[in-house]
Parts: sequence; structure tokens; C-alpha cells
Amino acid sequence: MIDFEIPAEVGALCGRIGEFVRDVAIPAEARDDGEHGLDDGLRRDLQAAARGAGVFAPQLARELGGQGLDMRGTTLALEAAGYGLLGPPALNCAAPDEGNMHLLDAVADPDQRERYLLPLAAGEVRSCFAMTEPSPGAGSDPSLLRSRAVRGDGGWVIDGQKWFITGAEGAAFAICMATTEEGATMFLVDADNPGWRIERLVDATDRVFAGGHAEVALEECRVGPEAVLGEVGKGFEYAQVRLAPARLTHCSRWLGAARRAHDFALERAAERPAFGGALADLGMVQERIARSEIDLATSRLLNWHCAWTLDQGGSGRAESSLAKAHVAEACWRVVDRSVQICGALGVSGDGPLARLMNEMRPFRIYDGPTETHLWAIARRAVRRRVGAGR
Amino acid sequence: MIDFEIPAEVGALCGRIGEFVRDVAIPAEARDDGEHGLDDGLRRDLQAAARGAGVFAPQLARELGGQGLDMRGTTLALEAAGYGLLGPPALNCAAPDEGNMHLLDAVADPDQRERYLLPLAAGEVRSCFAMTEPSPGAGSDPSLLRSRAVRGDGGWVIDGQKWFITGAEGAAFAICMATTEEGATMFLVDADNPGWRIERLVDATDRVFAGGHAEVALEECRVGPEAVLGEVGKGFEYAQVRLAPARLTHCSRWLGAARRAHDFALERAAERPAFGGALADLGMVQERIARSEIDLATSRLLNWHCAWTLDQGGSGRAESSLAKAHVAEACWRVVDRSVQICGALGVSGDGPLARLMNEMRPFRIYDGPTETHLWAIARRAVRRRVGAGR
Amino acid sequence: MIDFEIPAEVGALCGRIGEFVRDVAIPAEARDDGEHGLDDGLRRDLQAAARGAGVFAPQLARELGGQGLDMRGTTLALEAAGYGLLGPPALNCAAPDEGNMHLLDAVADPDQRERYLLPLAAGEVRSCFAMTEPSPGAGSDPSLLRSRAVRGDGGWVIDGQKWFITGAEGAAFAICMATTEEGATMFLVDADNPGWRIERLVDATDRVFAGGHAEVALEECRVGPEAVLGEVGKGFEYAQVRLAPARLTHCSRWLGAARRAHDFALERAAERPAFGGALADLGMVQERIARSEIDLATSRLLNWHCAWTLDQGGSGRAESSLAKAHVAEACWRVVDRSVQICGALGVSGDGPLARLMNEMRPFRIYDGPTETHLWAIARRAVRRRVGAGR
Amino acid sequence: MIDFEIPAEVGALCGRIGEFVRDVAIPAEARDDGEHGLDDGLRRDLQAAARGAGVFAPQLARELGGQGLDMRGTTLALEAAGYGLLGPPALNCAAPDEGNMHLLDAVADPDQRERYLLPLAAGEVRSCFAMTEPSPGAGSDPSLLRSRAVRGDGGWVIDGQKWFITGAEGAAFAICMATTEEGATMFLVDADNPGWRIERLVDATDRVFAGGHAEVALEECRVGPEAVLGEVGKGFEYAQVRLAPARLTHCSRWLGAARRAHDFALERAAERPAFGGALADLGMVQERIARSEIDLATSRLLNWHCAWTLDQGGSGRAESSLAKAHVAEACWRVVDRSVQICGALGVSGDGPLARLMNEMRPFRIYDGPTETHLWAIARRAVRRRVGAGR
Repeated sequence: MIDFEIPAEVGALCGRIGEFVRDVAIPAEARDDGEHGLDDGLRRDLQAAARGAGVFAPQLARELGGQGLDMRGTTLALEAAGYGLLGPPALNCAAPDEGNMHLLDAVADPDQRERYLLPLAAGEVRSCFAMTEPSPGAGSDPSLLRSRAVRGDGGWVIDGQKWFITGAEGAAFAICMATTEEGATMFLVDADNPGWRIERLVDATDRVFAGGHAEVALEECRVGPEAVLGEVGKGFEYAQVRLAPARLTHCSRWLGAARRAHDFALERAAERPAFGGALADLGMVQERIARSEIDLATSRLLNWHCAWTLDQGGSGRAESSLAKAHVAEACWRVVDRSVQICGALGVSGDGPLARLMNEMRPFRIYDGPTETHLWAIARRAVRRRVGAGR
Repeated sequence: MIDFEIPAEVGALCGRIGEFVRDVAIPAEARDDGEHGLDDGLRRDLQAAARGAGVFAPQLARELGGQGLDMRGTTLALEAAGYGLLGPPALNCAAPDEGNMHLLDAVADPDQRERYLLPLAAGEVRSCFAMTEPSPGAGSDPSLLRSRAVRGDGGWVIDGQKWFITGAEGAAFAICMATTEEGATMFLVDADNPGWRIERLVDATDRVFAGGHAEVALEECRVGPEAVLGEVGKGFEYAQVRLAPARLTHCSRWLGAARRAHDFALERAAERPAFGGALADLGMVQERIARSEIDLATSRLLNWHCAWTLDQGGSGRAESSLAKAHVAEACWRVVDRSVQICGALGVSGDGPLARLMNEMRPFRIYDGPTETHLWAIARRAVRRRVGAGR
Repeated sequence: MIDFEIPAEVGALCGRIGEFVRDVAIPAEARDDGEHGLDDGLRRDLQAAARGAGVFAPQLARELGGQGLDMRGTTLALEAAGYGLLGPPALNCAAPDEGNMHLLDAVADPDQRERYLLPLAAGEVRSCFAMTEPSPGAGSDPSLLRSRAVRGDGGWVIDGQKWFITGAEGAAFAICMATTEEGATMFLVDADNPGWRIERLVDATDRVFAGGHAEVALEECRVGPEAVLGEVGKGFEYAQVRLAPARLTHCSRWLGAARRAHDFALERAAERPAFGGALADLGMVQERIARSEIDLATSRLLNWHCAWTLDQGGSGRAESSLAKAHVAEACWRVVDRSVQICGALGVSGDGPLARLMNEMRPFRIYDGPTETHLWAIARRAVRRRVGAGR
Repeated sequence: MIDFEIPAEVGALCGRIGEFVRDVAIPAEARDDGEHGLDDGLRRDLQAAARGAGVFAPQLARELGGQGLDMRGTTLALEAAGYGLLGPPALNCAAPDEGNMHLLDAVADPDQRERYLLPLAAGEVRSCFAMTEPSPGAGSDPSLLRSRAVRGDGGWVIDGQKWFITGAEGAAFAICMATTEEGATMFLVDADNPGWRIERLVDATDRVFAGGHAEVALEECRVGPEAVLGEVGKGFEYAQVRLAPARLTHCSRWLGAARRAHDFALERAAERPAFGGALADLGMVQERIARSEIDLATSRLLNWHCAWTLDQGGSGRAESSLAKAHVAEACWRVVDRSVQICGALGVSGDGPLARLMNEMRPFRIYDGPTETHLWAIARRAVRRRVGAGR
């Protein structure tokens, strides 16, 4: 039965997250001055505060120390968390750790679970996901994967170059994708492996991700057979297991950030005098506000629909692709309009918008640029209508 | 609990409507050649067929001869009906009758109910809603209403000019808005009232509405006190009662029409050779297909959300305004992209798109142009954020 | 030296054309009620009037009875003519005749010139250009050409199916594209050739083209060797000779039509009361007006630049492609905004906008849909930047 | 006579500027690491190099040490300079100095000319333009000006608060706008005036402007009668003298920056493998490239047209407003598409795009946000069509 009622306990949790973000996470942004991502000390302080507020890890099962929400609850909670840039790391539901936890929870064997998932869930360590490579390697087109793993010494030897690996600096381990004779495979690589070397940090417009983004060299990186995550040759399959929910949580967090930008612009528009009234009385400003309202409403509904599909046991591939393509563009438009409404204030550090713009822009690219999703959506649509022949 | 499950019996009814549209309503379009709207004989034939197929009046209560759906079921059923241009009149759920039935059901007294609602619900007669006036009268801004009703002879005398009155030609009665000393008031005016005169038919790009659009003169139009619908002075209030659900049913029907345009383009794109493959293999075509998928998905979700709000007893004013502003623009974009994908076929009578374009275009204007809704949405957003002060 | 001065004599001619359009061509639109394009009697009347007003055939050389303008003058004159839907046929500068004259002027031998070009230039006969074929034949991708001409009886025998051939009904002859062993070739086919048969007229949203659009069968269509236009095998090359200027004249005419829509909306916006002022005082209306001003200004400048390139002896392929891609979309947006500003009046026959919308829509498709031009523009840009390697 | 020929000597100068930018200005960007704008030492080094290369101050008259170009030449030269972020300051044609020189050249008396214009033209000092105020003062709506100057001690005493004053830090003097009893007035205020106090630097997304943006307090700022620029009460009039050309030079510089972003994306698209070809072979990438080509071409033509108007002695108010509204949006779209084409590279410091995005964004706001220009354009359009009555 079509229903948009939010269960009371989920609503209450989101309310607490909202308060935490307002009272703790947003004020902490002033302390977040790392050039390459969130400082680890600040991250730990915030996580302790989140635990104290009873809002830690909304997306994780209770036995992993989380709040036990399903995907519908998770999308709501992560939207609330995303209202502050430091909300997601504070609640241990930020990328890439959140997606990695989801993947490990689905695929890891008991030993891997103990060794990697539990400390990650507890926020004791951070992790990274090492798939993207410098051109001409894997990017939007993962089939270009060039990092290779060959069997040796009873384990594996991995060689390759990785680029834009979010959170690599400071991570305890990586989930690393490499090709083998049996196909793409995921390996758990400890950060202290001598064959895993962070070569440099890559500047990016965002700086909210703990550890920033790094270029990493894998040189004769030797791992044991127990380092294989799941089965050999199933790397792309697992990437899909990770991807659909990871896209949704991305969409949820950034929707929160877009709401914040919009709220800031609404307040400014209501108070800023211009041309005999307030900005909010001008038709062009009203049009921008209204279009942002529509963008936010449609984004939220796509998120909910995707979450519901996942909760029904669906793969969510189609729904998360649709959500990602729309939400990333819509949230960007919201931030852009908010900047424009606020004028010079919008591009200055006197408000949050300049930073939000820089944090939000890559969202249209990370986890598949919009165009890649549009392509996938179109092919599905044609197949749905015309049949398997295509 | 957030849920997108469609109840089995609603799904089954929509399935039957889909078959009816495919097998009866769409083939009948070839017989729909009236210059000023659907021919009444064809309308009656189609309604008989719809009754036979068990799909008549999905939106009406069973005691009125309908299928007894709530608003969520109604939006689904009307989307299915709208897939064919003649689906809505066949199912007696087309504008303006459908909105008028809703209004009468909510406001009419027992006598008015008997005299006006029952035959309208049965499809025995048609009706019209006489609000819009030629410039400088009531249009997007209803406060410009110039038609006046004054008390006289124990009843009322109405004078004014109405324009673009959909379905007036051939209607048995009008719900007519006029100002009185106590404020705007709705009157039930029989079409054989000598003071109600259809002056001419107004050409429009659409021609699916039975009776087309008319210019009407009210000249010393005398009605009894029983002609007042509801209470004197509450005309604008009742207009809102009619408006929110009427916007939603509009959005539902046109979403069906947009889906049809999209399906036509999908089939064409899959089969038309071009540049070494099919159109559907070209990136720019794929982008258009994907954007239409997003437009259709977001439109459907806004419709569902609005319907749910109404089913919860909400006024739906905000939700239907948001839906109208988005769905009208999104459906238009879908039709426009479909035309473009199909090339010359898209602007020709060899397929349905040229007509769909002409039928769809006014939807961005009827029941409040997009801009009026954007304005309302913005004002609500500012008030919600900043408070009652504004 | 960069200069935007319009020579006085060109300005004066454009002024006369403007008056002719206002006083003769626009009033004649009420008499233009053919279902399938402009009535030939009306066309002849208007051409006589245009001759009388000294504005006939601005694009033709004086020895062909024209006004002898270069391409810069022509783009200005055709914009002025296009302000009225019947301006271009009245001035004998409408598609497809205008492009055919240009092509014949460039390629025809003296006999063909005498027999085909002179009567066409004088408006005594009409012509058509028979290239497009039904799917899976030639459309946006001309390489799919399926009509074939084989040598026989000292001449040629042509077989094929043509579709959407503008002006075929009533034309005296066709320039017909067919493949031969030596490649695509253009043939001059007289309309009374028994192998040339108009099978039906194809409905389209536009109805300004004399003769409408037809489906034509070529069945054992025998022509002599003198029917070859130019050289055998050079059909696509000549199509390019025709295309660049034909695109520009299309852009010029439709820019005039867009200006008319805009002017109509400006007047309406200034006079229609709404929300305490006039429509023109509302910010959202102002935004639409301003965006149309920008679209018109940028379209005009691209036209001028393309015309200048042609006047310098350039092929104009790049410039006309750029102009077509922008002007077709921009002019459509202008019409669409004008419709929206005018509300119900915009979609009604009480003003010119509903028809302008239907006339304008195919412009985004004819002579290469926007997407085809975007593709060509992108490839040129990459080659320009990266070099011949691509 | 409409002409798009660039004079040979202007073309040659632009060629030299292009080489200077490629060989000197762009390599110097790596040394430009000031948090609040270009370092003054680097600025002086670059200006010396530009003088050596014979490209210094293209917009200034020869007697002021410049290259003596008219506005058409200037727009070309500044586009070439803007291709590098440090091109404009190197050539002493960056905002706000360039606009201030123009204003001083037009309005300053001989003493002011000697004292302020000459050293500014020579690059010996920098300047700022102090108009914008913190809310609720002057911003998009200059009529909200709150800074006041009153007569006292034979001169003036100015009090007020200024915000976002570009280049104030390090400037030798300010042109400061304040209201007097006779209306808004411009004052020349030396930076060492004890009543002029830079309170703080305001962070902004751009950091190319020497001195960044500052908040400035004017507290009992005493100036002599000779500090009045032009006449008392004519401040807004002079602002217009400064504005039209300043908008055009802004548009010219940023068009150069947009071209650079586009070129970078073209190269990347040609070389980056994806999905079996290069990025540049994908339809969606081609669409983005082509739309950027159109945006660049239309922007350039609007700039040229505006420049020509100014060269003819026109005020250029309408033309520069149109150009600003289009060029700022178009250039932003170009940068945004370039970022998207380049993916993660686009948002990283491994290429110029992330910085270009941050430098470009404020251009849609500075010198009048797009919306203010749309408003002005619409009002002009209505007046032009409907007449002085409005």
C-alpha cells in the first residue's frame, strides 16, 4: 500500500540527529581546517559525541553497534546527518567507510569480519576502496582495470597504480580491485603492507573526506590467500553489491547538504532588502526557491523509492542509478541557486555556501558520473520496452 | 511506513484499464475528428464500452457507479486511462467533469446532488466550470473576477463574460463563479437558461476535450436561490476544494499521455537505423531517453505523494501545487524529447506525437500556469523556514 | 574590421519588406486555410503584390529578377520576411524553392538553367527536393540512401520511395537524390514523369509550405542523360552546396517568426493585468522576456557571422551548423516562452502563437536535427584542438 | 557594413598576448599561492615581463603607456589575456584597476589624473572601488547605499561600512561611493587616511584578485574638497560610465578563461579511453562539447557587438547588460561541462579546472548578478515595444 508515513521511532532518531548536527557537527566545522580532509582527532571527538547522543551509525545493525535501521530509515537518517558536513563522519556513516562496511557485512568471511568489519564499525579505524586508476585505467569504465594480481608464494602479488583513492591516507586497510586470470577480484590490503605505498595526496575541491584523496602505488604487494574478499573473479559482482546502497547513501547525505544550502538561502532571501522589499519578494528569486523545492522533493522521493526497493530484497541497481543521476544534479542545482540568491555572500566564506559548492560538485562525478548513469538508464528503458532482443 | 506497494486489486483494475485503452480507446482516436473536441456520440459509445469492461469512473464511489478508489488508486487508474487520449472521457474521469463531480460531491446539497451530480456521474450529461474571463478579468489571478451576481426577484442575476470555458458547448450545466457583495460565489447555471449564451468556440491546440472551449456571455442570467452551490461568498474556498484533487487528476492523466509518447519514441529509437546502429545506440538519444525516464519517475512519485496526502485528509494544496509545477513541465519535456527522437515522424500525423504535443502544451497553463505555482511554492517555503512573520 | 553597421540600402529594403509583411502578408494569413500547405492561388497573389512592392526575391541576382543582395543582406531580408508566415512564399524565398534555386544557380548547365531555374526564380512554378526516405532509408543519416538509379536506354531508371517531400504536390519538378554505381547523384525529374507518383500527403504540424509534405514513389522512373544535375556521383557534394546557405536562410526566416512571437508576448505582457500590476511587472515574466531577448540577439549574430563567412567565399559548413543548432533551439524557446506568457491566449487561435508553435517545432528537425549538428560541431572542435589525428 | 574581419595589427598583438600567456602567465600560476589573492611581488614581475613582451595595458591609450586599442581590439586582447588567470594582472587590465582607470580617464581632473591615474596606469600602485556594503546596504540594489559623506572642515567626512571591496588590501587609494545631501558621490580616498580601515579579509572562492576582498570601515574619514571625483551628486551617473565598459572587459577576460577550460577538456576527451573509444567519441560528451562551442561563439559575438557599440559612441548600457547576462552564464556552463567531461580530474588540482570553477563562479554575481541584468533587459524590451508609456 503506497504510504509515506515515517515510523515514529525513525522520526525521533532523525530528530536527535538533527539536533546533534545543529548543536555539535555544524559548530565543529570551524575546527575542520585540514587541507586534505577531516582531521582524525576531530573525527574521533565527534564520533564519541555521536555515541553519547545515541545517534552513532544509524545504518548498522545493533550487533555492530548501530541503530539497526532498514534502508528507508537509513536514507532518512543519513539525510539528517548530511545537513552538516561533519555529520556523516561523526555518525560513522560517511563514504567510503559506510559502503565498505556494507560490502564486508555482505561478503566477508568470519575472520575478515572480525579483523576488518568490527573495528571499522566501531570507528576505531578507517578504510578505503581502491578501484579508480589514472588514465588510461579504470574510471567511469571499470573494464579498463589495469592493476593485476597474480598467484605467487601461496598468495597473491598485486601491481598497479591507483588514483583518487578517498581516505587512503590514514586508512588501516584497503579493499583493492585488481584483475586476475579468473577476472576482477577484491583484495583486503593492510595499509602497512610494504607493497602498498601512498605516493601523494591529490587536491580536490572537497575536503570533508577524512584522509582526502591519494595516489597509491601497488608494487609487488604480497597478500595471503585470506586477503581475497569473497571469491576470486567476482570483483565486479561485489562492486555492484556495494554500489547500489552506496549510491543511495551518497544521495541521502548530499540531499541533507542541499537542504542546508537552501535553508541558508531562504533565510537570507527573507531578510535581505532589495528593490523595495526583500529578496524573497522578487519573482526571479521566487522561481529559484521554488525550483529548489521541487528538486529537493523529487530527490527525496527517489531516495525513498530506492530504499524501499532495497528493503524488499531488490538489487536496487536501476533505482539507485536513477536516484544518483537525478539527485546529484538536483542537489547541485539547489546549491548553485542558493549561491546565486545570496550574491557575494554566496561565494564568500562568511556563509557555508562557498564550501558546500566545493564539497557538492564532485558528487556529480563520484560513484559514476551522471552521464554513465544516464547511459545505463536509457539502455534499461529500451530493453524494458523492446525486449531482450536488445 | 514508507511503502510503494500497489494493492493487488488496484493493480488488476489498472491492468484492465491498460487493456481497454490499448484495445478500445487508442483505436478510437482515428474516429475522433471533431474540430472542437470529442464528438458526443463517440464519447457515449466509449463510456458504454468502459462500463462493459468494468473500468468506468475509477475515481467515483461505488454508490455513484464508480470503482471506489481512494486518491492513490485514482492517480494510478487515471495515469493508465491517460495513456490514450480518449481514455479519460471513456472512463468519465476527464476534465472538467471529473473535478466538478468531486466538487459537487463535497459541497452540493441533496437536491443539487440529485439533479446535477447523479446524471454527471452516470455520464448522461456533461458540465463545465465557468471561472476564467477575457482580459482584464480573472485568469491566473482569480482576484480579477469581474462577473457579478446581484440579488433580485428572490434569486440572483448574473452578468459577465467568460472565456475558454472547456466543455461549455454541449454541457447540461455550468458551475459559474461570480462576485457578490459577500464575496465570490459559485452558481449552478443550467445551459438552457436564456441568460447563458455560448458566443463562439475558441480554437485551441488541444481538441480532446468534449465540447472544446467556448466564450460565453452571461446577460441578466437569472437563477433561483437554490442555484447557489454551498454558501454565498465561499467561492474561492470551494475552488480550492476542487483544485487540489483536480490538479492531481490532471497530472495523472497527462503522465499517462507522456508515457505513451515515451514508449513510442523508445520503439522508434530501437528500430530506426542511423550511423551504423540504431538511434537508441546514440549517446544523445540515450541522454534524452534517460532524462525522460527521470521525468516520468519523479512525476509519478510526486503524484503518489500528493494522493497519499489527500487520503490522509490533508488539503493537498502544497503537494498538488508542487506536483502540477513539476509534472506539467516534465511531461512536456518528455513529449518534446520524444518528438525530437522521432524526427520528421515526430512532427507528422504518421504517429501520435504531433497530436500529443498539441494536447499536452496547454497543461502547463491550465489550472494555474507553472509560474503561478512556482510563486506559491516559494512563498510557502519562505514562510515554512522563516515563520509566520512573512 | 569588426562592424555591425547595416548598409542604408539594405536597411531600406528591409524596411519595405517589414511594411509588406505587416500590411499584406500577415493579413493574408486569415485566408491561408489549406489543410496541406499554402494554396497556390494565394501564393501567386502574394508574389504579385511583392513584386509590386519591390521586395520580390531579395536573395536572387538582379538578372534573375531578384534584389541582388549578398548573404548578409539576404539574412536580414529573410528575417524581415519571416516575421509573417506568408512573407517567405510571397517573396519567393521560402524553402525548398529558395535552396533549390541556389543549387541550380551553382550547378545547373545552361539548358537546365533555362528550363528549371528561370521559371522557378520567376515564381511561375514550384519545385521540391527529394532526398528523405521512409525508415530504414535516408534521414538524418544520408548514407542510408536506398533509392537507386541505373543506366538504361541511354538515360537512367530510378526506383525508390521518398517521404516527407516538402512541396512535391504541385511542384513542376523535383531534384531527386538516388545512388548510382558512381555514388549518390542528383536528377531533375519532371512532375509529369509517369514514374514519379505522389502517393499521399503526410500530415505535419506545419502547414505553411506550399504543397505540404508528400510520400512519393519512384517506379521505373526513366529520365534522359540531361536529367543529371552536375556530375554523376557528386550528389552528396552538391547537397553540401545547397545545405550551408539553406540552413542560414532557414535560420533567418524562423528568427523573424520568433521575433513576431516575442513581440506579441511583449504587448500582451504590458497590457494584461495580474497581481496588482501588469504581467510585465512580474519577475518570472521578466526573466522569460529577457531570456528571449538573449536568444534573439545571439541568433541574429550567429546568422550574420555565417552570412559574412559565405560572403567571404567560405563554405560556411561549420558556421551554418553552429547557427542551425543554436537558432532552431533558441527560436523554439522564444515561441514557447511567448506561449507561456500569454497563457490560454497562447494556446488558442485568438492569437498567432498556437500556429507559430506548430510551424516552428519542425525547424529543430528539418535540415538536420539539432543533435546531428551538435555531433558535427563536436567533431570539428576536437579536430581543431587535437589535430588531424582524429 | 557587417564585417567580422580582425585587423592584422590587432590579430598580431593578440597573438603575442597568447604566447605571453602560454609561456609566462600560465606557468606562473604555480607560484600564485596567496590565500587572499595574487602576491604583489609576482604581480610586479609579471607586469615587467608583459612590458618586455610589448603587451602591457592593451586597453590604455599610448600616452598612458598602453597599446591604444579601441574597444573592439580591447575585447579581443582581454580575451587572449584571460586565457591565463594571471594574464589580466600581468597586462594591467584586471578588475578593478582596469575599470578604475577607465573611470578616472573619463572623469578625473588634471590633478587627480596626475596623482591617481598615471601611477595606476603604470602599474606602480593598485586601487579599489568601494561601493558594496554589508546587508542591508548597497548590493545589487545600489539605492540602498548607506555610507554618508557630510561637509565639514572645508572638505568631507565619510562614515560607513564597505564589504567585499576587491583589492582594498594593498591598494594605494579607493574610489569610494557615499551619499551626500546632493546625492551619491564618488570620493578618492587614500589608503593611508586614518579614517579608512581594513577590518578583515573576506574569504571568497576566487583568489586571483590582487589583495583579495576586504571589509572596510570608514570612520570619520576626512578628505579635502579635491577628493571629490567629478561632481558632487553624480556618483550613480559615473558608476554607469564605469559599468558598461567594465562589464565588457569582465566578459572578455572570463571568455578567455572559459576557452581555456574548454581546450583542456577537449584534449582530455580526445585522449582518455572509455567504453571502446575515447571520451570524445561518446555522444553525451560530444553534446557537452558542442554546447560549449555554441556558448563560446555566442559570447564572443555579444562581446564584439557591445564593443562596436561603445566604439560608435554609444553608452553600451543595453549591450553590456545583455552580454554580461549571457556571457557570465555561458562561460560558467562551459567550465562546468569541462569539469564534468574530465571527471575526477576536473575536480582535482591535477588540472586547472577546479580552480577555474572557483574563479569563475563569482562572475555570475559581480558587477550585477545575472538576475539584475535580466530584469533590466526585460524592462528595456517592454519599453522598446510598447513605448515610453511604461
